[in-house]
Amino acid sequence: MKIAVLSGDGIGPEVTGEALRVLDALGLPGLTVFEGDVGGIAYKRHGQPLPPETLTMAREADAVLFGAVGDPACDGLERALRPEQAILGLRKELELFANLRPAKVFPGLEHLSPLKGELASSLDLLIVRELTGDVYFGEKGERTASDGSREGWDMMRYSETEVARIARVAFRAARASASDGQGRVTNVDKANVLETSQVWRDTVREAAGSHPDIALDHMYVDNAAMQIISNPARFSVILTGNLFGDILSDLASAAVGSIGLLASASVGERRTAHGVFGLYEPIHGSAPDIAGTGKANPMASILSAAMMLRHSFALDDAAARIENAVARALADGARGRDLGGDAGTRAIGDAVIERL
Amino acid sequence: MKIAVLSGDGIGPEVTGEALRVLDALGLPGLTVFEGDVGGIAYKRHGQPLPPETLTMAREADAVLFGAVGDPACDGLERALRPEQAILGLRKELELFANLRPAKVFPGLEHLSPLKGELASSLDLLIVRELTGDVYFGEKGERTASDGSREGWDMMRYSETEVARIARVAFRAARASASDGQGRVTNVDKANVLETSQVWRDTVREAAGSHPDIALDHMYVDNAAMQIISNPARFSVILTGNLFGDILSDLASAAVGSIGLLASASVGERRTAHGVFGLYEPIHGSAPDIAGTGKANPMASILSAAMMLRHSFALDDAAARIENAVARALADGARGRDLGGDAGTRAIGDAVIERL
Ligand SMILES: CC(C)[C@H](C(=O)O)[C@@H](O)C(=O)O
Ligand SMILES: CC(C)[C@H](C(=O)O)[C@@H](O)C(=O)O
Repeated sequence: MKIAVLSGDGIGPEVTGEALRVLDALGLPGLTVFEGDVGGIAYKRHGQPLPPETLTMAREADAVLFGAVGDPACDGLERALRPEQAILGLRKELELFANLRPAKVFPGLEHLSPLKGELASSLDLLIVRELTGDVYFGEKGERTASDGSREGWDMMRYSETEVARIARVAFRAARASASDGQGRVTNVDKANVLETSQVWRDTVREAAGSHPDIALDHMYVDNAAMQIISNPARFSVILTGNLFGDILSDLASAAVGSIGLLASASVGERRTAHGVFGLYEPIHGSAPDIAGTGKANPMASILSAAMMLRHSFALDDAAARIENAVARALADGARGRDLGGDAGTRAIGDAVIERL
Repeated sequence: MKIAVLSGDGIGPEVTGEALRVLDALGLPGLTVFEGDVGGIAYKRHGQPLPPETLTMAREADAVLFGAVGDPACDGLERALRPEQAILGLRKELELFANLRPAKVFPGLEHLSPLKGELASSLDLLIVRELTGDVYFGEKGERTASDGSREGWDMMRYSETEVARIARVAFRAARASASDGQGRVTNVDKANVLETSQVWRDTVREAAGSHPDIALDHMYVDNAAMQIISNPARFSVILTGNLFGDILSDLASAAVGSIGLLASASVGERRTAHGVFGLYEPIHGSAPDIAGTGKANPMASILSAAMMLRHSFALDDAAARIENAVARALADGARGRDLGGDAGTRAIGDAVIERL
């Protein structure tokens, strides 16, 4: 079981370090860890945010544990050299086309949600975001507009093949989460304006044919943004494209109110000897302002490691041990500054390890 | 002073009817009203959602008072014939490139916001959305993907010229709203991924040079979606493109919590003898489920008429009379079902008229 650890910039190394300590404490046999440079630190050391050696290391691993990328010192660089390109490159090169982002308020932390009590506690959804297509990876460039001024352009696009495979992920996820009722998928697009969405919607509808047990409905993205905050209980699994998914998954996370606890998985279809290959990362950024101060909350990284054990190594029990330990640590007051507490990075790591 | 009234589908005619009664009650000299078909009803009568006669009527007026479009009976039609195309066509043909969407919680209606008390009352922002460019109006179509499957595509694009003019609108709006402090504009884009956003951001930055009194900052759209709900006080004027503006303005409206009260203005640069030509509409849709039942809340349409008097006819006093009458009617309990009350369409119109 090989893990490539790409901890990146800012607080990335600190929080990933705690996740590794937690994995270590579990004493899983056969787990080996390789560390690679990614993001701003990789640019400084190798002149590019995603060096070939890092990509190779990731490719040869069974899973990637990712920290965060982003470094204000790189702001002036041309886009291709900026830290964020590393995560886009990893998704594309490793064909991690499905991003899974659960958004659920932790028991006892309802007060951190910006939403009113009942709305906050009814929020429990999973966003399945396509990650390797859309306007992110279409052709793009600059040209001269008809009036002679400068014009920027980006091609938005989706093919049936790309949509069908992400739709399958969403339907499977809906089935898995429907243990106590009917699985539901809400497809989110902008089919009243976009041709891309028209193909998207037709393909999702067709894929639904092979999943008669799942209830499917469709919603425009503007309406979905409204309902995520005004009627979150309406959603179970949201299936959407790369651009809308970027916005809606961050919106759903903000609605939870504790970004420092949220993890994500990016997976494709490639299977390793142990499970599905995937990349796991906290949804928070590199937070350069608090990097190195020992104040960052590592729980999202620790929970990302748990997601990794479950999805890429089929180690459900070990994953549950981590998740329960985090929940108990939270209940016992091991809360970072972001949660209104004052526990530091290391102390939170210790608190989780003690409760494994 | 010519007004083209395009009341459209569903509850559009009912709510617009009350707005017209309110205008009538003001007894403004020289106001003439023309009515035209738009949306699903226009399709039924003329075979297209935006017939040429309607467009001509709108063009020859000094302002357009718009109701709502959308009719489930048209769902099966090809996109070009669907009711929503009428509003897109009007924006484009009339060069209404700037959509102004104020989002502020009405005093006494904080409980309707999905946001917690303090967040709800600190929400007071204006979204300035570009309306005639972006992926909405770029080329689009279907083609065969490299693997032979069907592919939908839409071109996202913005030229400097298009960005500069919407930026001017935002800076002017920030100046106008800064009576008691420094004007602030937050530019929202996705410059870490999109070339379109890169041109957009550069142009906004340049336009800021002529507005040294306004503080400008930049934010990615995913972050903006988060902060609108978690830290709304951070925003004053948000400047953004057509697609992101569609999502964020609906999100901000949902955060207010009383969609039935929110109005919008779409303006360009064309001046008439009376002021700036514009189109005014409630942000709510055609609500076919309650059409004809007399239950729709007409306040957003009435407030749209007030916006029209202010922006297109420089009748600030008359606009304020309407707005104050609405506020008093609300305070006196004239609340529609959407606000937790039981007042009907006509009764709400009466309540406003009595308080003019
Ligand atoms: C850093 C950025 C390019 C990225 C994205 O837009 O996908 C981020 O926002 C995310 O969601 O992981
Ligand atoms: C009806 C639709 C095409 C339209 C849009 O996306 O612009 C609507 O959502 C709006 O915001 O006015």
